Amino acid sequence: MPTPITGILTPNITPVDRDGRVDEDTLRRYVDWLIEKGVDGLYPNGSTGEFIRFTAEERRRIVEVVIDQTAGRVPVLAGAAEANAKETIAACEAYGAMGVRAVAIVAPFYYRLSDQGVYAYFREIAEAVSVDVTLYNIPLFASPISVDTVVRLASECPRVVGIKDSSGDLPNMMRMISQIRPIRDDFCFLTGWDAALVPMLVVGANGGTNATSGVVPELTRAIHRSVVAGDIDQAMKLQYQLLPLFDAMISISEFPEGFRAGARSRGWDLGPGRVPISDRQKEAIAEAQRQIDDLLREFVDAPTPGVSNRVIEKIVQQVMSQLKSQ
Amino acid sequence: MPTPITGILTPNITPVDRDGRVDEDTLRRYVDWLIEKGVDGLYPNGSTGEFIRFTAEERRRIVEVVIDQTAGRVPVLAGAAEANAKETIAACEAYGAMGVRAVAIVAPFYYRLSDQGVYAYFREIAEAVSVDVTLYNIPLFASPISVDTVVRLASECPRVVGIKDSSGDLPNMMRMISQIRPIRDDFCFLTGWDAALVPMLVVGANGGTNATSGVVPELTRAIHRSVVAGDIDQAMKLQYQLLPLFDAMISISEFPEGFRAGARSRGWDLGPGRVPISDRQKEAIAEAQRQIDDLLREFVDAPTPGVSNRVIEKIVQQVMSQLKSQ
Amino acid sequence: MPTPITGILTPNITPVDRDGRVDEDTLRRYVDWLIEKGVDGLYPNGSTGEFIRFTAEERRRIVEVVIDQTAGRVPVLAGAAEANAKETIAACEAYGAMGVRAVAIVAPFYYRLSDQGVYAYFREIAEAVSVDVTLYNIPLFASPISVDTVVRLASECPRVVGIKDSSGDLPNMMRMISQIRPIRDDFCFLTGWDAALVPMLVVGANGGTNATSGVVPELTRAIHRSVVAGDIDQAMKLQYQLLPLFDAMISISEFPEGFRAGARSRGWDLGPGRVPISDRQKEAIAEAQRQIDDLLREFVDAPTPGVSNRVIEKIVQQVMSQLKSQ
Amino acid sequence: MPTPITGILTPNITPVDRDGRVDEDTLRRYVDWLIEKGVDGLYPNGSTGEFIRFTAEERRRIVEVVIDQTAGRVPVLAGAAEANAKETIAACEAYGAMGVRAVAIVAPFYYRLSDQGVYAYFREIAEAVSVDVTLYNIPLFASPISVDTVVRLASECPRVVGIKDSSGDLPNMMRMISQIRPIRDDFCFLTGWDAALVPMLVVGANGGTNATSGVVPELTRAIHRSVVAGDIDQAMKLQYQLLPLFDAMISISEFPEGFRAGARSRGWDLGPGRVPISDRQKEAIAEAQRQIDDLLREFVDAPTPGVSNRVIEKIVQQVMSQLKSQ
Repeated sequence: MPTPITGILTPNITPVDRDGRVDEDTLRRYVDWLIEKGVDGLYPNGSTGEFIRFTAEERRRIVEVVIDQTAGRVPVLAGAAEANAKETIAACEAYGAMGVRAVAIVAPFYYRLSDQGVYAYFREIAEAVSVDVTLYNIPLFASPISVDTVVRLASECPRVVGIKDSSGDLPNMMRMISQIRPIRDDFCFLTGWDAALVPMLVVGANGGTNATSGVVPELTRAIHRSVVAGDIDQAMKLQYQLLPLFDAMISISEFPEGFRAGARSRGWDLGPGRVPISDRQKEAIAEAQRQIDDLLREFVDAPTPGVSNRVIEKIVQQVMSQLKSQ
Repeated sequence: MPTPITGILTPNITPVDRDGRVDEDTLRRYVDWLIEKGVDGLYPNGSTGEFIRFTAEERRRIVEVVIDQTAGRVPVLAGAAEANAKETIAACEAYGAMGVRAVAIVAPFYYRLSDQGVYAYFREIAEAVSVDVTLYNIPLFASPISVDTVVRLASECPRVVGIKDSSGDLPNMMRMISQIRPIRDDFCFLTGWDAALVPMLVVGANGGTNATSGVVPELTRAIHRSVVAGDIDQAMKLQYQLLPLFDAMISISEFPEGFRAGARSRGWDLGPGRVPISDRQKEAIAEAQRQIDDLLREFVDAPTPGVSNRVIEKIVQQVMSQLKSQ
Repeated sequence: MPTPITGILTPNITPVDRDGRVDEDTLRRYVDWLIEKGVDGLYPNGSTGEFIRFTAEERRRIVEVVIDQTAGRVPVLAGAAEANAKETIAACEAYGAMGVRAVAIVAPFYYRLSDQGVYAYFREIAEAVSVDVTLYNIPLFASPISVDTVVRLASECPRVVGIKDSSGDLPNMMRMISQIRPIRDDFCFLTGWDAALVPMLVVGANGGTNATSGVVPELTRAIHRSVVAGDIDQAMKLQYQLLPLFDAMISISEFPEGFRAGARSRGWDLGPGRVPISDRQKEAIAEAQRQIDDLLREFVDAPTPGVSNRVIEKIVQQVMSQLKSQ
Repeated sequence: MPTPITGILTPNITPVDRDGRVDEDTLRRYVDWLIEKGVDGLYPNGSTGEFIRFTAEERRRIVEVVIDQTAGRVPVLAGAAEANAKETIAACEAYGAMGVRAVAIVAPFYYRLSDQGVYAYFREIAEAVSVDVTLYNIPLFASPISVDTVVRLASECPRVVGIKDSSGDLPNMMRMISQIRPIRDDFCFLTGWDAALVPMLVVGANGGTNATSGVVPELTRAIHRSVVAGDIDQAMKLQYQLLPLFDAMISISEFPEGFRAGARSRGWDLGPGRVPISDRQKEAIAEAQRQIDDLLREFVDAPTPGVSNRVIEKIVQQVMSQLKSQ
């Protein structure tokens, strides 16, 4: 039986060039940087990747490029939601053939589906595909996937191997873990709620798909490794470092522009994004950029990629040696 | 200067055949029936038309078929929202070339954009297109378009010629009318909130894009004509007939399955829809179907299209004669 | 059988003196002014009267003063909600003995009760009291009273004689009217949603309990009389005058300070209110005061009570003569 | 400088006799039992104590009895919210004179105050009283107290010594701790969100005021002591035991009837409560009672108070010995 997906996966921003096209070169270099910095997987076509703002063809090409560049170094979890169940199934099969570890499928959005409708949608897909599927619950943007529905799908569909939960509902995470883990030890619980990454890991989540990991992959990695090593005090210190950074990036309109600004602070120009920005918003982003720069300067020596972050590296080394000694 | 769009436009369900493909034959016959029953316009690719569950190619074909079949008998308002501003602009231009009266563009969905972001999105589109644009506000499903943003776009963009508001917020409708009508007498205010169609018309809306008009076009037409004729008492009597029918159809999960059931009560088999339905939901729909049948039997002699509805026709004739005598 | 309560009732602000005590003298003079200006009833201890910020003893004294000063000129509807059902029943009986036309009881607040709990609460009270009871639905502040619960209480409890609805949900108003009016022609439907007073009256409400009537009683009276006279066009013109005034007063924090400012524009100093106001808020109120002054100046010749409002009076006379000629 | 309030405080249900009066005898015996079982403090007149359903006089008597019975064995935190700031200040002073450790004041409810209004309210009280004050944030029922307002009050008002947060917002708890702890080491952070007690303690909260501690005081005590001892694994095991019990009790309408049922499972008849319950609700409560009985049987040998719970006691002893060895 396969082991659950664990660790920190990066829902990467999709770089775009000045003409608004997917910037494949930058995407490839950014993937390399993230892997070098220690992310445990990549997650193209997530919310941070603005999947909905690309065409069906562009989405496929994005996964293709990420798979090709990753070259098996880390697993890839590919966002596969399309216009309807039939199109989504086709995308799943295509991504499976490309070699993704699993696909992630967000619940139907725009319309708010009933619990029954959400169940029927995922059931139809899970029975048709030959690739592993993770459910993606983000009630802020899409129809909520209830705890009961996740439990039911986990018990009925072997192809459903995990839940990526961005609700931030910690008791619900516990409710899912307590009901599913006894019957499915291959099922993974991933959190997309960076602001409570440590608490989510403490209650038993296997890892996270966190937008902040696209900006400070060293920090999210150190958090995960600290919890695995049982050093909750250290993990919480790092979580308290992550929080103001996350707050600064999430508060910028429109999502994910704050995280694009964060990447810029690390030396990555990922382009203009796919949503029009008013002049007033541009000023706000520029001001936030300075704040993010300041926050990052505190624990990164130089804001350019490739320059090692001594403080974080030290923490990681320390955690790693703890892990080895166990 | 062009006159504003008025009357009742039908956001038509998109018929689908047993293989899940757009059923063009049925779509053409349904368009004919709606026009014969007196709708003032058609609105393909609306929420009732499940626009988001079709591919970009299918959406274009749907508009093409509706335009072709309508053949100028009534104006067509085409839903033109695509993955991003650039794709939406391309769809607008394509629909303009096909001969639509205007396009309707829903505010960005999935992500909840800020007021500034909503403004920037519509502004970018409105400056690029050569077709008239109506804004589509449906805060239940998409980013809300604030009153201030509608007023700003109306005053800055000549191409923005109307708002289709499905919020049901009556005071906001009044706030928009009181600020925009003095500066733009070509601007139309359409309501998508069938449950309060008469009150919306009484406060000054020009008409509505109402899902119920796809089931009882005679009734929504009679409502509109009664208000235009100044016979509010008669209009309210009809509104009180419409409400239980609307309630029965809107309460069925998933939207727009209740309206599909309503059309079936009128003799139209529009196919299975594009969202998976669980067995439990199918039972609920079958039960609701009976309730809708009963409600429709009260004012329709026979549940088959083509058979005239004597009661409603009488009302319409009465209203028409009133209109002529003014 | 008694006739339903109709017209515009004023949920009056409770005047407070510089020491924070109920200012009975001003309350008496304000009651006189409101009656002279044509309100159809008074409603002490409503939300506008800040009932929750007074003690149980103060609330009783307030009703006593209003009843005494009114001296039967108009009916009084007294807010009677106390800490629990037993205390509320005692207040009801006390107010009944004082001579109120009916009491108004808000649904339990703080805790959000279930539909069953709301029903049980009103049922217990309705069976125990010997005074007429109106239900008060204000879901923004208190547990919502569902349409089903209102219908059930109307059919089971003769003492329940009306609903005061401040939800602003126009279709729900229609749902209540269509189900209750056939079985209870003594039941009144009052709206507390000033921004849609005309539409609510058009769909069949008997009247309203409107905070704006404490500031411009002439205007709300003229609106009601215009609708009764069947002159919807005139009523809508007045509604469009009321809306910006209502918006200016409702937008001021904290409620009901905007309405206190409005009364001040009419010459009434009703004191400081019962909620602490920060310096920043005081500045905002002073600025809003000027805006309200400007709005009122448009249709009131002089901002002092007693000075007749010629424009409004003219409208009222016109409506009255229309009414007489019918 | 005083030390912050820590550990688990019980927001105790207020026992009521068959005539609906406060049952002082049972209250005294219940207080004794809670203290014997190891709660770190008592919190009369909280939400669980149905403070709003008692009269001002009853609320004072309840605090008086609890203070008298506690006799200094544990600190008492008394809910002191009254009709307005003046009345609340008077209650604070009365409770201070009785010997409470601090008062807890819920933000103004019914009306939703603005952030400025919430600040002004607490500031006025904090400057007037001579007793320590904890802010009580429960946005589900009362005006929310923003992080900024808590930080501002903590920095301006020495009398404000803590926050009792029942929002369940874990990142907000972290935001408050990170900003206030550096400037106020006497300030306490208490969580009222039982479902995430361990995560809240892990991020740094000092303790909790938890309704479940009135039913299983041994379990909540063991959770707190495990976290203090650094045994997060053990704490999480206990948290996973607490969750289904909490879920069973919180899901019963109306709050706090589920916790009353839970106490009954432990042998405590705390009376009928102060809210009318329909027959259908009574059946639901009886069924839930059986479920709670089953859950409690798993870790309590006998459902009567005074009979020791061997499993829990063993855990507590183990934790205590760990604590001593540090």
